[in-house]
Amino acid sequence: MNPFDPPLPAVRDAVGRALAEDLLPLGDLTAALLPPGVTATARFVARQDGVVAGARCVGEVLLQLDPTLLLDWHAPDGTLVAAGEVLGVVEGSLASILTAERTALNFLCHLSGVATLTRRFVDAAGERATIWDTRKTLPGLRALEKAAVRAGGGRNHRGSLSEMVLVKDNHLLGLDITEAVGRAREMWPARTVEVECDRRDQVEEAVAAGATMVLLDNMSPAEVAGCVALVAGRIPVEVSGGVTLANVGAYAAAGADLISTSTITQSAPALDIGLDIVDG
Amino acid sequence: MNPFDPPLPAVRDAVGRALAEDLLPLGDLTAALLPPGVTATARFVARQDGVVAGARCVGEVLLQLDPTLLLDWHAPDGTLVAAGEVLGVVEGSLASILTAERTALNFLCHLSGVATLTRRFVDAAGERATIWDTRKTLPGLRALEKAAVRAGGGRNHRGSLSEMVLVKDNHLLGLDITEAVGRAREMWPARTVEVECDRRDQVEEAVAAGATMVLLDNMSPAEVAGCVALVAGRIPVEVSGGVTLANVGAYAAAGADLISTSTITQSAPALDIGLDIVDG
Amino acid sequence: MNPFDPPLPAVRDAVGRALAEDLLPLGDLTAALLPPGVTATARFVARQDGVVAGARCVGEVLLQLDPTLLLDWHAPDGTLVAAGEVLGVVEGSLASILTAERTALNFLCHLSGVATLTRRFVDAAGERATIWDTRKTLPGLRALEKAAVRAGGGRNHRGSLSEMVLVKDNHLLGLDITEAVGRAREMWPARTVEVECDRRDQVEEAVAAGATMVLLDNMSPAEVAGCVALVAGRIPVEVSGGVTLANVGAYAAAGADLISTSTITQSAPALDIGLDIVDG
Amino acid sequence: MNPFDPPLPAVRDAVGRALAEDLLPLGDLTAALLPPGVTATARFVARQDGVVAGARCVGEVLLQLDPTLLLDWHAPDGTLVAAGEVLGVVEGSLASILTAERTALNFLCHLSGVATLTRRFVDAAGERATIWDTRKTLPGLRALEKAAVRAGGGRNHRGSLSEMVLVKDNHLLGLDITEAVGRAREMWPARTVEVECDRRDQVEEAVAAGATMVLLDNMSPAEVAGCVALVAGRIPVEVSGGVTLANVGAYAAAGADLISTSTITQSAPALDIGLDIVDG
Amino acid sequence: MNPFDPPLPAVRDAVGRALAEDLLPLGDLTAALLPPGVTATARFVARQDGVVAGARCVGEVLLQLDPTLLLDWHAPDGTLVAAGEVLGVVEGSLASILTAERTALNFLCHLSGVATLTRRFVDAAGERATIWDTRKTLPGLRALEKAAVRAGGGRNHRGSLSEMVLVKDNHLLGLDITEAVGRAREMWPARTVEVECDRRDQVEEAVAAGATMVLLDNMSPAEVAGCVALVAGRIPVEVSGGVTLANVGAYAAAGADLISTSTITQSAPALDIGLDIVDG
Amino acid sequence: MNPFDPPLPAVRDAVGRALAEDLLPLGDLTAALLPPGVTATARFVARQDGVVAGARCVGEVLLQLDPTLLLDWHAPDGTLVAAGEVLGVVEGSLASILTAERTALNFLCHLSGVATLTRRFVDAAGERATIWDTRKTLPGLRALEKAAVRAGGGRNHRGSLSEMVLVKDNHLLGLDITEAVGRAREMWPARTVEVECDRRDQVEEAVAAGATMVLLDNMSPAEVAGCVALVAGRIPVEVSGGVTLANVGAYAAAGADLISTSTITQSAPALDIGLDIVDG
Repeated sequence: MNPFDPPLPAVRDAVGRALAEDLLPLGDLTAALLPPGVTATARFVARQDGVVAGARCVGEVLLQLDPTLLLDWHAPDGTLVAAGEVLGVVEGSLASILTAERTALNFLCHLSGVATLTRRFVDAAGERATIWDTRKTLPGLRALEKAAVRAGGGRNHRGSLSEMVLVKDNHLLGLDITEAVGRAREMWPARTVEVECDRRDQVEEAVAAGATMVLLDNMSPAEVAGCVALVAGRIPVEVSGGVTLANVGAYAAAGADLISTSTITQSAPALDIGLDIVDG
Repeated sequence: MNPFDPPLPAVRDAVGRALAEDLLPLGDLTAALLPPGVTATARFVARQDGVVAGARCVGEVLLQLDPTLLLDWHAPDGTLVAAGEVLGVVEGSLASILTAERTALNFLCHLSGVATLTRRFVDAAGERATIWDTRKTLPGLRALEKAAVRAGGGRNHRGSLSEMVLVKDNHLLGLDITEAVGRAREMWPARTVEVECDRRDQVEEAVAAGATMVLLDNMSPAEVAGCVALVAGRIPVEVSGGVTLANVGAYAAAGADLISTSTITQSAPALDIGLDIVDG
Repeated sequence: MNPFDPPLPAVRDAVGRALAEDLLPLGDLTAALLPPGVTATARFVARQDGVVAGARCVGEVLLQLDPTLLLDWHAPDGTLVAAGEVLGVVEGSLASILTAERTALNFLCHLSGVATLTRRFVDAAGERATIWDTRKTLPGLRALEKAAVRAGGGRNHRGSLSEMVLVKDNHLLGLDITEAVGRAREMWPARTVEVECDRRDQVEEAVAAGATMVLLDNMSPAEVAGCVALVAGRIPVEVSGGVTLANVGAYAAAGADLISTSTITQSAPALDIGLDIVDG
Repeated sequence: MNPFDPPLPAVRDAVGRALAEDLLPLGDLTAALLPPGVTATARFVARQDGVVAGARCVGEVLLQLDPTLLLDWHAPDGTLVAAGEVLGVVEGSLASILTAERTALNFLCHLSGVATLTRRFVDAAGERATIWDTRKTLPGLRALEKAAVRAGGGRNHRGSLSEMVLVKDNHLLGLDITEAVGRAREMWPARTVEVECDRRDQVEEAVAAGATMVLLDNMSPAEVAGCVALVAGRIPVEVSGGVTLANVGAYAAAGADLISTSTITQSAPALDIGLDIVDG
Repeated sequence: MNPFDPPLPAVRDAVGRALAEDLLPLGDLTAALLPPGVTATARFVARQDGVVAGARCVGEVLLQLDPTLLLDWHAPDGTLVAAGEVLGVVEGSLASILTAERTALNFLCHLSGVATLTRRFVDAAGERATIWDTRKTLPGLRALEKAAVRAGGGRNHRGSLSEMVLVKDNHLLGLDITEAVGRAREMWPARTVEVECDRRDQVEEAVAAGATMVLLDNMSPAEVAGCVALVAGRIPVEVSGGVTLANVGAYAAAGADLISTSTITQSAPALDIGLDIVDG
Repeated sequence: MNPFDPPLPAVRDAVGRALAEDLLPLGDLTAALLPPGVTATARFVARQDGVVAGARCVGEVLLQLDPTLLLDWHAPDGTLVAAGEVLGVVEGSLASILTAERTALNFLCHLSGVATLTRRFVDAAGERATIWDTRKTLPGLRALEKAAVRAGGGRNHRGSLSEMVLVKDNHLLGLDITEAVGRAREMWPARTVEVECDRRDQVEEAVAAGATMVLLDNMSPAEVAGCVALVAGRIPVEVSGGVTLANVGAYAAAGADLISTSTITQSAPALDIGLDIVDG
């Protein structure tokens, strides 16, 4: 098991839906025109530099569509590839390959796009800070996108509302930070309890209340540095809000432990990967 | 029925999966900390200019999560909004609103992102050419993304492999254009039969064979203009490959009837929309 | 609850799939052309005499597609209707009504077809014998078709392999009738244990072994009469195989208690029912 | 890939539901009586002449029920078989074979019934006209039935509401033919736009408006011939309504390009196919 | 096929849901820490004496999680095992084994718990009476639990409301015993029609009306004996209500044919079975 | 929102499956015998003292089965009830109430059984220690059972493998404690990292490595006290293995912060709750 791989049940389910979406009710009208028995060899080829993610999805698309197709995959999730590099080779029925092509590439290009943009943030942040994702993922694709973030060298913030406590400003309409952290530690023992802070005084209150992390939201690098000094290593500090490739290094330099960004899941352009028939 | 709305069965299914993804198994740990009975009013507010898409998904998220929430939505799909504008107002349990927030926004921001980028392409193309989407959609979200394209003023190319015949270069490994078109017209009567052409001579062959459309792939505007002259209005001409906001106007000026781009679905950044609690 | 109605979970599930099948991914291209706000009143009208079945499905189609549609249904399942009779009236968005029309009618016409043909067999058999269905139902529609059989005055043989024991000739390759009945009574206590008999001597063996029913397969009415005399009322006698509207009366006269036929589910022509817009 | 085969995702899904329908919750009570280890060879045998459809479903039923069963299938979808002919042979556990029998045959007999009746219409129409199906399919079985129509030599009209534009009389309550065709061409570029015509003047209006097909509904062969002359080959002409084996030749002779009938999907009697144990 | 095995579609579905429940969205955080390529051999070992049930579920968990795992299972459902006995051995990726462990054991321990407690009731009842289960099963697990009851030597009462008629006291608010039995025999021919009786006079009425079984509810063994004498072997007698390991022998001695208890499905403690890594 | 309530998507899904399980394919044979139009009022009544859980499931069963039923529920999840107390009252069709009865009670009795047994452990542990559940839940019911644990005053350990890191003995075949904790903190930042310790020296290693919790497995209360002294409040200490109502107090007295037991989910007897028709 590659820790960058998404859980197989999530892969099977997403692929099943994607194939149904593209094939029902009549199947592939165009592939049906091909004479029977024509076989081919095809290569998945990167057309841009990037980080691969989605290999398990490609394999599952081929398996669900035509179990006689043979796939030899060279680039496990997390592999850095250059434009022109061959990621994998599939052999078998030409019709099946052409029918599978788009669905397989839709997974591969999107997830590799996520991994690639994540890697750019990771590189820009440097060794000091860790890039974290968010819950701002595309509906139905969370497990796959979070795995792609890992493939790109990022780490996963909570997978769902069910995993950690994260007290945001709007929660504070109903109770204050000290109460919130206290209740959280009582109701959900041993869990991460993070508090979103917009101001320096909130940081101190959160730490005092027993929060296990603080999230500094929409602060400048200078403000972050101030809060980091205040926290003084007692708990990890996350920064979020307005993080870009341009400023992520500054936030890392300011001492943030974790820098989270929704851009890598919500706004990652697809990585350009194609399928070339090499032997018809 | 708003023709920009996605089919309700697609909405229900996608929303159900998205909520399960975010809530199972323990529910929202943080909202559970709120004292019972706290209610609030919250506004969906655009933080950027753009085109709205995804209203049906927002309503469905609220309905599936807590049927007692009341939503008053002002901006049906296709509405052009400015930063700061209120798209809709929800009232009810603060805990329910905060639990629903991210899932609702994940749909709304992504789909509005698609609509907004589509609208930019539509505006750049001008009145002469129509912007078309592709099958390069995010797995499991095709129906929603294609509706968002319509909301942005674009039009939908085929919804799936099952809808039209589109003979691409790789299909021609198994048969030639004339054969392909002939078989297509015989096997799938009365359907659109489009042929992807990389060269001028293929265009002529496709028209002669009876194709109902040609797709000019990866040609320059000048090459497109040549092919448009060759076709001379006999059938519509689609252009694809390397279309950008910068060159889409040139392709339109070259006479293409339809210009398709995967960018609008596969690489659209999310539109920034937030939820503001206005009355806790 | 009308005992002719199928269980609601089966209805919801079948309708959900049918709507998805007809609407994804782009929705109803044609209804989308209608100007917004046009409403209509439409009538479901029988174009042939027959027995209605499928009312719950019609209601569910409308509900799932557009909850604002209003349905006033006059003809609960089991109602005998004449050509020209109005079964129900729907009011609301013209676009929604036209989108729903075919899916609703596909259920209604098929299930009413089953009910109507069942009724013809019931009438031909007369009061003496009961018409029974079989497991030869269309895949995915068993609950609905078996309810339609009830609506037509027939009765339901076992709903699935999980319900009764029915020892057929092929089972006897592995064990004899006496053994089979003995094991059945031991393994599945208190259940119906029926034995298919092709010959008179098997009937006697089955009764002696403790079968609670015999199935006379592919016998003539005269042979049936002989077996009925042999059984002499000790257990019910079912007849199956080659039953037609022409000979069902003869089988009933021969003394069969139950006459089963796959024709009513597997080969029932649709009942012609249409939707008339009465007020556009 | 056989173009007569339905898409595999549709097969898997329909088979899974059909098996659940027949086996839950207790499994096959009767097969459970057989002594363990009994194996058999069984043949699927046509009991009537006809056209085979549904082979993929048979294979999938066996695979999902008991992956150790071996199937050797001789008659791919579209094969014309005579009564007595062996379609395929299955070997393995007798209990598994008997449990699978009815579900496999329910698919095979229904779909072959569709293919067989389609073939009769195709033969009756002759070479001149093409037989088309409709959306009047049994709920949940559209993909399978449309593939069976292809196996019988027919062709598929639109797979769903999402595929083509077909303006019917009821749509004209909201807009006229010219408007409808104009909007259709604008909203759904490059798609088939068909207009249902009850009268000769509508045909002319539809052609003038730019419809790509006309559907002549409920006209006599003579009226059809008149409209065909009017259209004069400019666009294809479909005929529907009241088409029977008796009159389909007349409609073909009248010059219709496509003749559509719901009878082949909605009212096709099952083809009689049985399973014979040949070696217990 | 082992008649103690649950139907495979029920197994697949339950296992798929259980794995999703334990793995989504991020997979097994801890197994991801293991170095790649570490393999192991592990044994499923009984830690208590008991009866095994759930083998098919174990196999399916491993297959769905990692098809490269090899399972050698020694103890088919229904096997009596002693503490310390090895039930099966799995080999392959250590990470996969550890990820699968809990889900596999959750099925195995619960279902073996059901089988084991059933066996205790069966032994306590002795040969004279049969232990029957009820519909008081855990939601979503009925098919699996009913199979586990069989594995423990018990037998299955009706699988669902759809299988037999069982007239309970509350039904008699709407009609009397004679009417109920009469309608049941008319509406659901050839089915078991059981009547719950709280009093001796109801027993006589039920038998006279043609019930095929009576259920004596909450009677003492002495009262049961009286009713058994009254019935005098005409139909089987079931006893339910307050049955315990302590009194089940007395009920059996009182002449009950079938003794049903919800304890075996609703309140069976898990059988302690562990997974031991024997070779890391 | 009651924090003891399970997430609504989990409720809907589980209820839908449970109803299908009990009703398909023919519906409730017995309820179908009732004359139409009979209504009733019925009370859910506790027959034992205990803690209620599952109210949302009861409401959902009624809603999915017959939306016209009216439920007035008095005892939200977490309520302590005494034998004889009325939990809720339902009014409407007698047939619908009787059809719903068993499915509703199956949820309510099982989940209340979990809550009740949890409460007994909570009371036995006293104020000092918190009772925690485990992942040893019944397949498919995790979200509901974990909510029932909360209703009983317990707290939830991790919801799935995806939520926390818990390094067990078997993981240490592939890496040592220090490595495991180090990788965990690197790969899954800010998450709980717990280490299972069988020996005192492991506890010290885990704390030193940076674990955020230790789990003392299968130690005696005296051993636990020793380890608690060693940890000296640096991180929380969990105890598991062989915890019973008899010894849970001793473990609490030994200073464990959290005491986890699988008994409360895996071996909780159903709480006896019945449905009494009070007005037929």
